[in-house]
Amino acid sequence: MRTAKKNIQRLEFIAVGSELLSSSFPETNSLFLAEKLEQAGLNLTFKTVVSDRWSELQEVIRTARERSQIIFLSGGLGPTEDDRTKEALARVVRRRLIFNPEILKRIKKRFASRGLAMPASNKKQAYLIEGAEILENPHGTAPGQWLETGGKIFILLPGPPSEFKPMVENLVLPRLKNLSQKKIIKAFFKITGAGESWVEDRIKEVYKKLPPYLELTILASPGDLQIILSLKIDSEDQEAERTQELEKIKLKITRLLGDKIYAFEPRTLEQVVAEKLINLKKTIATAESCSGGLLAHRLTNIPGSSNYFQLGLVTYSNEAKIKLLSVPKTTIKEKGAVSAEVARAMASGLLKKADVDLAVAITGIAGPGGGSPKKPVGLVYLGLASSDGIEVEKCHFLGTREQIKFQATQKALDMVRLKLLKLEHRSGALKRKVS
Amino acid sequence: MRTAKKNIQRLEFIAVGSELLSSSFPETNSLFLAEKLEQAGLNLTFKTVVSDRWSELQEVIRTARERSQIIFLSGGLGPTEDDRTKEALARVVRRRLIFNPEILKRIKKRFASRGLAMPASNKKQAYLIEGAEILENPHGTAPGQWLETGGKIFILLPGPPSEFKPMVENLVLPRLKNLSQKKIIKAFFKITGAGESWVEDRIKEVYKKLPPYLELTILASPGDLQIILSLKIDSEDQEAERTQELEKIKLKITRLLGDKIYAFEPRTLEQVVAEKLINLKKTIATAESCSGGLLAHRLTNIPGSSNYFQLGLVTYSNEAKIKLLSVPKTTIKEKGAVSAEVARAMASGLLKKADVDLAVAITGIAGPGGGSPKKPVGLVYLGLASSDGIEVEKCHFLGTREQIKFQATQKALDMVRLKLLKLEHRSGALKRKVS
Repeated sequence: MRTAKKNIQRLEFIAVGSELLSSSFPETNSLFLAEKLEQAGLNLTFKTVVSDRWSELQEVIRTARERSQIIFLSGGLGPTEDDRTKEALARVVRRRLIFNPEILKRIKKRFASRGLAMPASNKKQAYLIEGAEILENPHGTAPGQWLETGGKIFILLPGPPSEFKPMVENLVLPRLKNLSQKKIIKAFFKITGAGESWVEDRIKEVYKKLPPYLELTILASPGDLQIILSLKIDSEDQEAERTQELEKIKLKITRLLGDKIYAFEPRTLEQVVAEKLINLKKTIATAESCSGGLLAHRLTNIPGSSNYFQLGLVTYSNEAKIKLLSVPKTTIKEKGAVSAEVARAMASGLLKKADVDLAVAITGIAGPGGGSPKKPVGLVYLGLASSDGIEVEKCHFLGTREQIKFQATQKALDMVRLKLLKLEHRSGALKRKVS
Repeated sequence: MRTAKKNIQRLEFIAVGSELLSSSFPETNSLFLAEKLEQAGLNLTFKTVVSDRWSELQEVIRTARERSQIIFLSGGLGPTEDDRTKEALARVVRRRLIFNPEILKRIKKRFASRGLAMPASNKKQAYLIEGAEILENPHGTAPGQWLETGGKIFILLPGPPSEFKPMVENLVLPRLKNLSQKKIIKAFFKITGAGESWVEDRIKEVYKKLPPYLELTILASPGDLQIILSLKIDSEDQEAERTQELEKIKLKITRLLGDKIYAFEPRTLEQVVAEKLINLKKTIATAESCSGGLLAHRLTNIPGSSNYFQLGLVTYSNEAKIKLLSVPKTTIKEKGAVSAEVARAMASGLLKKADVDLAVAITGIAGPGGGSPKKPVGLVYLGLASSDGIEVEKCHFLGTREQIKFQATQKALDMVRLKLLKLEHRSGALKRKVS
């Protein structure tokens, strides 16, 4: 590893897989890798995508060996015949593949834990390039490999992101950090309830006066927005001053965007809401029409969600709204299922039914059909009921069916977040009074 | 162009831009290009991403010139100093850059049409590599260039997708089509309820005897699997024979995998189930515990889902299971909430409550907490109730919380699909009897 330490100039990422050259499969592992490398002050110099054909795979590995010092290879470690990344690398560096009984044992155990016998084809995954170290893969059968040879480091990782990501994070990065002197510090702002141009306009004064060592990026998707500040530190003596400058700019942005910011880390809105629900010991129930269960799904994606999530109803039909949520038949008839009144009735009915602290309801038109001039696709009403009463909001979202579903749940989660913020302040004030 | 015609073997795409090596900017132009190429029977052999630094950019162009016949370059044609794609290419192929007053006129006109004077820096965009043809860019200031030299074709295109895409479609593809006699025909198999090694083992006999013009790829993710057959046709007189061969192989695979195949197109399982529900005029309701609403979400992602989806319940707590689904309290107490008995009671309770044709229930442990040696994380019971009675299945899924949730819903959808298949056969048999 000492040889490489002096020469870290070029890091190359190679994604192996014919499907990644087609129109249907975007390559995403490199984005995750780049993010983690940036945190360690490292950058990729080249990214290459190649099919799993012998000749081309070997060519690409040869080219990478000539021009780069650290070479990541992702994919092609599976049990099938066209998984041949390690075979190709072994040929290029002229090493043998050596059978490792320990790895085989682990693979067999993995199958056995599900009551299955290991198919014969998986034996292939128990071979290691001569001289390589094993990188354990807790989420799949293919172990990774770390090979240093000829002053170069080759890092072989499995292609499925669910296996690739934790291995990069837990096994590869700690080793690479030792190799880097530079540092990048990032600050995150996660934002909802505001559009990209609004945010841009709002923080213009900060944006225009950024020092050269500070980069600001805005990433926008329907219903969710992220600002990333990247601070470059080239040497230790800059660290204190630059970090202070970063803190000042963070404060300014925070003041300008206020409670539109829901997190200062790259977290999801449901993670933030879940944490608040748990801290405040509040319970929640959902009643969804157009969002079709997505709100419940998002709220239950968080481990431990049974602590706060009690009940979710997907009342798609009018009968279900009437029967399960006691929405008056006449309200639906007079105002329509997509109306402020029905959103209110759904939330209030749910609060009574579910015996929870917060009851959220969504009714709207996800499209692409079902819209009309008076009630267009994307029109959504949301209700939030608690012991404080019922709030109702009207929104008009743009986008595809899935984007409208997402934005509706995002808005619902944000209403819950703002409600919980108030409760936090209240309980804070109460504590201050008591003490 | 005649030289290249014989040698179209390798097409390489190079995306130029330092931002494309960071974590925040996925490269997407190549996906669009690949899609259009596929329609013309062409495939990319390599994709490369490189920064706009001189040395690396030239290196990458040199490597591409050595190994590929047609080289697409996207990005780096703008007016700023670090836009230097054409400069780098000119150096590599040893050609001069020649000022083109026509291009300058057009750029100035473009600015004038918006009431603006052209900034001096844009003059740079009016230079053309000696011998290159202009590719007009109606959506931006940077024209593309088409250069043939040394038996290779270089195609320079601007980076912004809004400029890149129409130029590929309108200017590049028509020219490439002339170069290609080839055609690629694809066949798809979407599979669930079987693992990758099982499938591979099962179709081994087909896999091993594939003719060289037929490529088979297996793409696997937890709970879902895809086989893609790509048939290459190099000339018209091969078409009939090779297409016939493809049909034979499709038939063999279909026989070997049977009803594990849920679609012969790249569709999702929920799309297939939705179509069957609509065709058979059947309605459905869901009761979910560990999958937390994801099944309802997936079933309602399909436009028109209100035709078949009636009601979804996310009965996370035991009380909800008892109150809403009439699951006997004693069953939960004696067998536990995650048990075959509770899955059965949930499905049967739901069928009674919701007045639908099919009632699906899921109960399990999504993890990461909540497991025990007897009931480990990933243990899931599923129930499907209809007028035919109730089926219950037990599964043990591996993976993260989200993967376990997904696999549970995938299994539930598959139980519904197989049930609907039976109903189809029955109604088919009935029709035959009647006619």
